[in-house]
Amino acid sequence: MSLTLYELTGKDDRRFSPYCWRIRMALAHKGLAADFVAVHFTDKDTIAFSGQGKVPVLVDGATTVSDSFEIACHLDDNHADRPALFGNEIARGEARLINHWTNSVLHALIQPLVIDDIYQHLAEADRAYFLETRSPRFDRPFDQVQARRETDVVALRSALTPLRLTLAEQPYLAGGTPAFADYIVLGAFQWARSISPFKLLEDDDPVRAWRDRVLSAFGRAGYATTAYDA
Amino acid sequence: MSLTLYELTGKDDRRFSPYCWRIRMALAHKGLAADFVAVHFTDKDTIAFSGQGKVPVLVDGATTVSDSFEIACHLDDNHADRPALFGNEIARGEARLINHWTNSVLHALIQPLVIDDIYQHLAEADRAYFLETRSPRFDRPFDQVQARRETDVVALRSALTPLRLTLAEQPYLAGGTPAFADYIVLGAFQWARSISPFKLLEDDDPVRAWRDRVLSAFGRAGYATTAYDA
Repeated sequence: MSLTLYELTGKDDRRFSPYCWRIRMALAHKGLAADFVAVHFTDKDTIAFSGQGKVPVLVDGATTVSDSFEIACHLDDNHADRPALFGNEIARGEARLINHWTNSVLHALIQPLVIDDIYQHLAEADRAYFLETRSPRFDRPFDQVQARRETDVVALRSALTPLRLTLAEQPYLAGGTPAFADYIVLGAFQWARSISPFKLLEDDDPVRAWRDRVLSAFGRAGYATTAYDA
Repeated sequence: MSLTLYELTGKDDRRFSPYCWRIRMALAHKGLAADFVAVHFTDKDTIAFSGQGKVPVLVDGATTVSDSFEIACHLDDNHADRPALFGNEIARGEARLINHWTNSVLHALIQPLVIDDIYQHLAEADRAYFLETRSPRFDRPFDQVQARRETDVVALRSALTPLRLTLAEQPYLAGGTPAFADYIVLGAFQWARSISPFKLLEDDDPVRAWRDRVLSAFGRAGYATTAYDA
C-alpha cells in the first residue's frame, strides 16, 4: 500500500505549511513511509484530482483525503494497528477544539510576525496569488506589518499560557507521549521556523523545549526539511 | 459505596463554583448518586480532613480526592464501568490543555463581568475574605469593574470563536456526546449563571445552544440549583 502526501512548498524547497506539517508528523507517528510531492500555491492542477484546491492531500492506496484533520481521522481509522493519533472518539472530539484554537488564535498571532518572511520565501509564481489573498487581512504592507514584531510577539507569548501550564503537568499536549494535538500546535511553529529566522519562543520557554522534543521525535522527523535555527 | 461532594456555596444556597460544577456534571455523567455538602469560602474546617483548603473535595468510600481534574481522573479510573469522561490517555492529556485554557483565558474574561454579582451573592461571613483575595486582581472596586461589562463582554464573545467553530462540526466539545471537556467549559458559564443575571451569550450564539444542551443532560442536572435565567 503506497502513501503519497502532496504538500506546500516555497522557493528553495521550503515546506512551510502548518497543515502539511501536521500530516508529516502524523505519518512519522504511525511509522508509515510516504512519498512527498511538493506543490506551489498556484499549482492547482497537480491536486485537481482531489476535487478541491488545497494541500495537504493524502493518497492512501485507492483513497484520496484532503483537509488535515480529516486526514488524521483517516489515518487513525485505517491504520488502527499503528500508534493512535486519537484512539477514541473523545480524544478526536477534543482535538477538534484544539484544532480550531490553533487555527483561529495561534495562527492569527503568528502570521503578522512572519508575513513578509513568508512572502520572501515564496516561489516567484506564487507571489501575486499570495499578495492578492493575504493583503486584505492587513492594514499595511507586509514589511511594515512585520516591522512591529518585536512588540507584537508579546501577545503571542501571552497566548501560550495554557500550553505552559499544561506542559508543567505532562511532557506533551496529549499527555505522556505526543499525539495529533501536539502535531496541530507544532505545525504553527514549524510554519514560522521554515521561512523565518525570527525567534517566537524565548530560550527558557517550556513551549520551546516541548517544540524541540516533538521536532526530535521519530528520528528527528521535524528536522527533515530546510528551516531556520529560530 | 457512598459518595460525598463538598462544594462551594454563597448566600441563598447559590452553588457558584465553576470547579465544583465540573464534578456535579461528571457525577451525573457517570450516573453516580452523591450527597452534596455546602461549604463557604471561609469554612476551612469542614474540609480540613482533605489536607488542603479548597473545594471541590470528593469522598468516594475510603478515598478522598481534591482538585477538579484529579477528581475526574479518579472517577474515570475507579468507575470505569460507567460512561467515560476521557476513556484513554490522549483524551485525558488533551483535556488538561482545555482545562488550562478555560482557567486562564475564559475565567479571566468572565470574572470582571460578574465580580460584583459574585460579591453580592456571598454569605456575609465570606465577604471580607473575598475582598481581600480578589481585590488585588483589579485596579478599581468591584462595582466599577463590572460597570464596564457591556463593553468588556465583546472580548469574551470573541474568545469563544474556537468553541463556535468546533460546535459547527460536532454537537459537543468532546464530540458526538458530552464528556469532561464539556463540563470544564460549562462550569465557567454555570459560575456566572448561578450569581448573575448578566447575559454572557447572545440568543443566537451556538455556544449558548450548546450550554443549554449540556445543562439539560442527565435529567436536567445543570438546573438542579438556584440560578438566573441568563
